[in-house]
Amino acid sequence: MDQKLQMLLDTVRRLVRRGAYPNLSKVLAKSHPADIAHLFSYLVPKEQQILFNLIENTEMAASVLSELEHSTGAFLLEQIGRETITEVLQEMPYDDAVEIIRNLPEEIAEEILTTMQDEHSEEIEQLLQYAEDTAGGIMSTEIFSLREETTVQQAIADLQQAKDVEMVFYVYVTDAHGHLVGVMSLRQLLTVSPATQLKDVMVTDVINVRTDKDQEEVAQLVAKYNILAIPVVDEWNKLVGLITVDDVIDVMREEATEDIYKMAGASEEELLYGYKSFKVAQLRLPWLITNLFGGVITGYLMWQFKATLSEVIALITFIPVITGMGGNVGGQSATIVVRGFATGRIDLSSLRQVILKELRVGIIMGAVCGITVGLVALIWHGNPFLGLVVGLAMISAMTVAASMGALAPTFFKRVGIDPAIASSPFVQTANDITGILIYFGTATLFISHLH
Amino acid sequence: MDQKLQMLLDTVRRLVRRGAYPNLSKVLAKSHPADIAHLFSYLVPKEQQILFNLIENTEMAASVLSELEHSTGAFLLEQIGRETITEVLQEMPYDDAVEIIRNLPEEIAEEILTTMQDEHSEEIEQLLQYAEDTAGGIMSTEIFSLREETTVQQAIADLQQAKDVEMVFYVYVTDAHGHLVGVMSLRQLLTVSPATQLKDVMVTDVINVRTDKDQEEVAQLVAKYNILAIPVVDEWNKLVGLITVDDVIDVMREEATEDIYKMAGASEEELLYGYKSFKVAQLRLPWLITNLFGGVITGYLMWQFKATLSEVIALITFIPVITGMGGNVGGQSATIVVRGFATGRIDLSSLRQVILKELRVGIIMGAVCGITVGLVALIWHGNPFLGLVVGLAMISAMTVAASMGALAPTFFKRVGIDPAIASSPFVQTANDITGILIYFGTATLFISHLH
Repeated sequence: MDQKLQMLLDTVRRLVRRGAYPNLSKVLAKSHPADIAHLFSYLVPKEQQILFNLIENTEMAASVLSELEHSTGAFLLEQIGRETITEVLQEMPYDDAVEIIRNLPEEIAEEILTTMQDEHSEEIEQLLQYAEDTAGGIMSTEIFSLREETTVQQAIADLQQAKDVEMVFYVYVTDAHGHLVGVMSLRQLLTVSPATQLKDVMVTDVINVRTDKDQEEVAQLVAKYNILAIPVVDEWNKLVGLITVDDVIDVMREEATEDIYKMAGASEEELLYGYKSFKVAQLRLPWLITNLFGGVITGYLMWQFKATLSEVIALITFIPVITGMGGNVGGQSATIVVRGFATGRIDLSSLRQVILKELRVGIIMGAVCGITVGLVALIWHGNPFLGLVVGLAMISAMTVAASMGALAPTFFKRVGIDPAIASSPFVQTANDITGILIYFGTATLFISHLH
Repeated sequence: MDQKLQMLLDTVRRLVRRGAYPNLSKVLAKSHPADIAHLFSYLVPKEQQILFNLIENTEMAASVLSELEHSTGAFLLEQIGRETITEVLQEMPYDDAVEIIRNLPEEIAEEILTTMQDEHSEEIEQLLQYAEDTAGGIMSTEIFSLREETTVQQAIADLQQAKDVEMVFYVYVTDAHGHLVGVMSLRQLLTVSPATQLKDVMVTDVINVRTDKDQEEVAQLVAKYNILAIPVVDEWNKLVGLITVDDVIDVMREEATEDIYKMAGASEEELLYGYKSFKVAQLRLPWLITNLFGGVITGYLMWQFKATLSEVIALITFIPVITGMGGNVGGQSATIVVRGFATGRIDLSSLRQVILKELRVGIIMGAVCGITVGLVALIWHGNPFLGLVVGLAMISAMTVAASMGALAPTFFKRVGIDPAIASSPFVQTANDITGILIYFGTATLFISHLH
């Protein structure tokens, strides 16, 4: 937290403690909505509620709300009267209002939509039709667009009067039927003669997305073409919305966090629960229990080799390193592939090369680690055959692990399961099992030399 | 890859095969630089080289180059003549040129800087002074700024003439000494009367960063305040550069990938090496070898309990599940904390709460998993004491693992080591060791009941 925010937090806390609400109200009115929203993450629900009620300006309240984690926003709204909710939501950009409504309990959501003015509720209900993580689900419907016959002079005049349109940088141009046909930047508008019609100067090759485009792909497009906003069209190419770069930034951060959490078997959803341990535990447990049974199966396989083991108890000393290294290497390969899918760096056409590379890398690293651990075994237990068994097992286990780590996300992507969530428990269990089988298999083969 | 790009790729490959270079040249001239850059990732070096040389327009070549992975860009430049390099680099925005020069072998970089026109090389050398991952290192120096006495009319006229300034959305206002004093959006400019001076209408509270600000924090600011560009000032508050949102998107993606890779013990650097397996293996091995010795230490500890083990061989069946689950839970907690640091969601003031939460979550999940695995042990080996030992060990191991997972990144952050890279091998080894000690410690305690 930077100093400025720390000072604001201290001030706010002091004023809340003292009950100096009029002063607090003034402090809030002077702060940036994003800063107030940031403060909320350091406050307990009671303080959040007091603070939010002290924001006098409805527009300001709406801005704060759109900057909040949407779950916190939904929680706050549940605490205040239905009328106030409706008022505040009406002040917000529709796309933000929709996200908050999605997080509200269904009955409250419906009640609010009924009390809302028709013009607003219709817009919002239409947006609610789109799936949450598609272009339609995140787009804003307040677009500044003009007809292709408009003159530049008229366009500038319209622009000066446009209200409620946040962040205009491009003017989108449509034909008589609302089809997207062109685009111009604000700056281009200023550099052509006033009498020109837009259709004569506009760029006709507009990068755009359909409403059902996945939000992650939208983000990739915006990042690739370095654009500030991307227009959204329906299936008939009619302009229906706009996704601005600030929304794209949110999407990218969200998707990255989601992937990172998923790879560790956690879920971004737990951010909604803050410090509620039981809820968080509940979210993480299914993945852990899956792993637990993987571990039990591995243990069961070891049990099958108990004769070998009780003959050569030294064998147990390398179990952790062989299963552990398999897990590490498999995890690396899986991570590279999962992240590659997410950023678009790896796709089905480059996949074969990537998998072959991971296999080669696995062999090389397996050789290095196998020789290392083989030498350790030789020196420690003074038995060259033990060194050989451990080394061979390590090389094979790591090679198999690397290939499995690269193949598993591919397989899950093909069958339509999110590779980020499925890969890790699968890869880990599969690696443990093959590691153990290879290790004890080799050991049983050389058993007469291991005594 | 989308259809359009697939078609372009097919066309390009066909034309390369046929040697139809003039046609290829025409196809390239009509394509978007970002699309050409994207194509490069599917081509072998030889094809990349042919293609790049066929881009006739230097400006286009510069655009393609700035869209490429910077390593691919540096590679391509090494293949073409020094003069052409210099020409192309001079056409690029300085910030992109600087990034490419940073990736070139030092002698080539110096040679280029000497041949470059002084006006360009001076700018570039100045930018090279800033550390790569700071605001100074990523900013563009082509800023559109005006003096505070300028009238709105004059400002619009200046804007119409401004060239080489990519993506103007804000006009930055400076005083006579070049200090940043205000900002106006392009749209605001259009809505005030032409004779007004900028100082009377500008917003004076400009969000800005110092040149030495970490790029990750810059990205967090831009995301937080939903701005399209952030001005960069030196230590005397003089305006020296600008970071636009498209650079921020690159930074965010880069940092997310870096964190994800690091947590798995890989490095983003390996993307530079493509399919070169030895280089990639070299990058991943140090982390693996660290883990390897962690595994050997765990094995050594198990060896200390060989008496217990050879008495009750059934104990081995739960080693994988106990060390495995510790690793999973520790990994989850570490991931939550590392990602929290990266996104700014967790900072030192909220850390205590987070660690306590992870501890509670660890206890809850430990209890659930402990009971589950205890029952498995009881049913499988028919010994209630074995169930008790396994269950107790699981609960303690998971609780310790969760706390260690949350504490390790905190510790590494405090001592200035990147938590993303250090946490995993440390947490894993520490968890394995405590898991084994707790497990065999408990087992030794109950040994008389375990037969």
